Amino acid sequence: MALARHGATAEGGVDRPALSDDDAAARAMVRDWAAAIGLEPSVDAIGNLFLRLPGRDPDAPPVLTGSHLDSQPTGGRFDGVYGVLAGLEAVEAIVAAGIRPRRPIDVVAWNNEEGGRFAPGMMGSAVFAGRRDLSEMLAIEDADGVSVGAALEVLLAREAALSRRPLGGPAAAYIEAHIEQGPVLEAAGFAAGVVTGIQGKRTFRVTVTGAEAHAGTTPQGGRKDALSAAVAIIAALEPAMIAGGEAVMFTIGRLTVAPNVPSVVPAEAVFSIDLRHPESAVLTTLGDRIPDLCAAHRGPCAVRVTALTNEAPLDFPTALRDLIRAAAGAVAVPVMELTSAAGHDARYLHQVCPAGMIFVPCHLGISHNAAESAAPGDLAAGARILTAALLSLADH
Amino acid sequence: MALARHGATAEGGVDRPALSDDDAAARAMVRDWAAAIGLEPSVDAIGNLFLRLPGRDPDAPPVLTGSHLDSQPTGGRFDGVYGVLAGLEAVEAIVAAGIRPRRPIDVVAWNNEEGGRFAPGMMGSAVFAGRRDLSEMLAIEDADGVSVGAALEVLLAREAALSRRPLGGPAAAYIEAHIEQGPVLEAAGFAAGVVTGIQGKRTFRVTVTGAEAHAGTTPQGGRKDALSAAVAIIAALEPAMIAGGEAVMFTIGRLTVAPNVPSVVPAEAVFSIDLRHPESAVLTTLGDRIPDLCAAHRGPCAVRVTALTNEAPLDFPTALRDLIRAAAGAVAVPVMELTSAAGHDARYLHQVCPAGMIFVPCHLGISHNAAESAAPGDLAAGARILTAALLSLADH
Repeated sequence: MALARHGATAEGGVDRPALSDDDAAARAMVRDWAAAIGLEPSVDAIGNLFLRLPGRDPDAPPVLTGSHLDSQPTGGRFDGVYGVLAGLEAVEAIVAAGIRPRRPIDVVAWNNEEGGRFAPGMMGSAVFAGRRDLSEMLAIEDADGVSVGAALEVLLAREAALSRRPLGGPAAAYIEAHIEQGPVLEAAGFAAGVVTGIQGKRTFRVTVTGAEAHAGTTPQGGRKDALSAAVAIIAALEPAMIAGGEAVMFTIGRLTVAPNVPSVVPAEAVFSIDLRHPESAVLTTLGDRIPDLCAAHRGPCAVRVTALTNEAPLDFPTALRDLIRAAAGAVAVPVMELTSAAGHDARYLHQVCPAGMIFVPCHLGISHNAAESAAPGDLAAGARILTAALLSLADH
Repeated sequence: MALARHGATAEGGVDRPALSDDDAAARAMVRDWAAAIGLEPSVDAIGNLFLRLPGRDPDAPPVLTGSHLDSQPTGGRFDGVYGVLAGLEAVEAIVAAGIRPRRPIDVVAWNNEEGGRFAPGMMGSAVFAGRRDLSEMLAIEDADGVSVGAALEVLLAREAALSRRPLGGPAAAYIEAHIEQGPVLEAAGFAAGVVTGIQGKRTFRVTVTGAEAHAGTTPQGGRKDALSAAVAIIAALEPAMIAGGEAVMFTIGRLTVAPNVPSVVPAEAVFSIDLRHPESAVLTTLGDRIPDLCAAHRGPCAVRVTALTNEAPLDFPTALRDLIRAAAGAVAVPVMELTSAAGHDARYLHQVCPAGMIFVPCHLGISHNAAESAAPGDLAAGARILTAALLSLADH
């Protein structure tokens, strides 16, 4: 609740874009809490914040845990934040119990997970994992033309007192705690769940090009109305994608029209497509149909479909899922297994080391929304499982 | 072509919003040309610019002619500008012929006809005609929060040397020359046309309200996707309106989505409706169906339909149409009669005095577009008809 004051919205949610002043203030607050526990802060070249509990063996690769502090423009108070704070709570409990594990434990706030200000999201973890190029990411600009590099320079100047650590590095394991952002755990009555994997995701940008014309004088048959064509395309895409089954997630979240004036027939409409599914074959089949469906319903306009991301579904390693399940047993929290419908930084950490996730319920599955909420008891249960799992991994 | 340098776009068109610096520069250029002819400039409280050729009888109500100098964001070089310049050419020819008519002739550049920056359009002529309230118009803001009043203050400071004339005032008649903005004259092979009237227009704003949700986790059946609902509504509206016949003009020119982020299910979609038809009964029947059609296709979202303008079709007086036809005969330009599909300042002047319009062809009917073009010979033919008609009215 304290963190949610940084970027608080009138609706009770959070609008805290990556590398904004509010993001910097949230990071400072977390660093203060970490300092009180005795953790050692450091930051890397893409702005990931590390808070380290040193281990007994200085040469042992660390165990990592964490999530992110940035939010969507209409975000809630738990998405991302919970994983960072659960990690701090776990480490605080370990310190309070007088335990010093063999491996270091790094609580990490990955920079720009949401991608709301600077696309793509999961930027910090992707660069950490070597899956995206640092200099390419630094060149990306927000809607105002501010680059990641420029915004990061401001942040790093604020955090000049922190030691700088090299990008990437060895890692023994990664566990991320997160709200589910879906309705499964709450409906099934579990306080926590072990995540089996992350559904796949394909995103596209569709650009429909027509021709400007006077709304009062251009006969309907002589128009190249880009918005009208976009509407026909979307009206065809929606049922075709949804027919792929209940597990299909299909969203057109962004649509912009030009010149976007009431009395001018639109010359251009650009929209986003976000398609997700847990099964690789279904995701491939559905996604591959999109260009043809767009072309078939473009009417007199031109249409261009640009594929942006294509993230295959992934399965977390069984050994780590079993370890989290055992940790839950040790702290007496019953758990179920479930798939993550949303992407998380764990997607990229999975490329670096054995990775896993712990979910806690969020009310009605509502997320990316001011109404996002989670029960204190569930949040505590997830943090207890995380503590036991980190201890087990850090002494391994 | 000289005026088109003020606000010139890379595509060869014009982007000259009302009360912008480019608009002020265009007005200054027109004032210079008028001064060279010996016309007396004045400006009123809503920013209409008057350029007067004094008459023999100082007490006789003037004959007015003109149009506007502002453009749509993706406007061309002829829309509006032609009517102002044809008026100047006509008056210059009258002066050059050594004729001093009984009535004054005012060449007028009506402020903010397009309404692209400050809605509603035809603002200057509407206030002149007493059909809109000056103080209400001054309070209207553009997308940056700049009010008409504030922008007008800047303009009037630039034009402080001009005498200020009271709003409105007596008028003997009004004739406006304009490009057709439709394909009729060119297709029929006429260099000019006499306008019988202006088709009616109804505009609406439709607000669809859903709920933000995570694109990756919210099951399709549990969504309140405002854009999806807007698409369903538009897909239903289009065929229903177009079924009203070939004379129906139906346009959705503006659509905005919130929060407009690829990975968030849209919470709100707002779109404009522009519906035009020359027959009052058809316009009423079609327009009245819009709220029910929106409600029927809103799905799980809420929808609100706000009626903005409702301008009935109008017929210009037969006497003035006959006078323009006779003027065309006097200068040996064959003309046809046609309806105006677009609204013009003549709509409001029609409320004040006998009003009429002269159209000239524009290539392929393309307007509100950088490709807007008209043939010099046609433009000259229209200006010759205007000259003869103004002389006839001013000596009446």
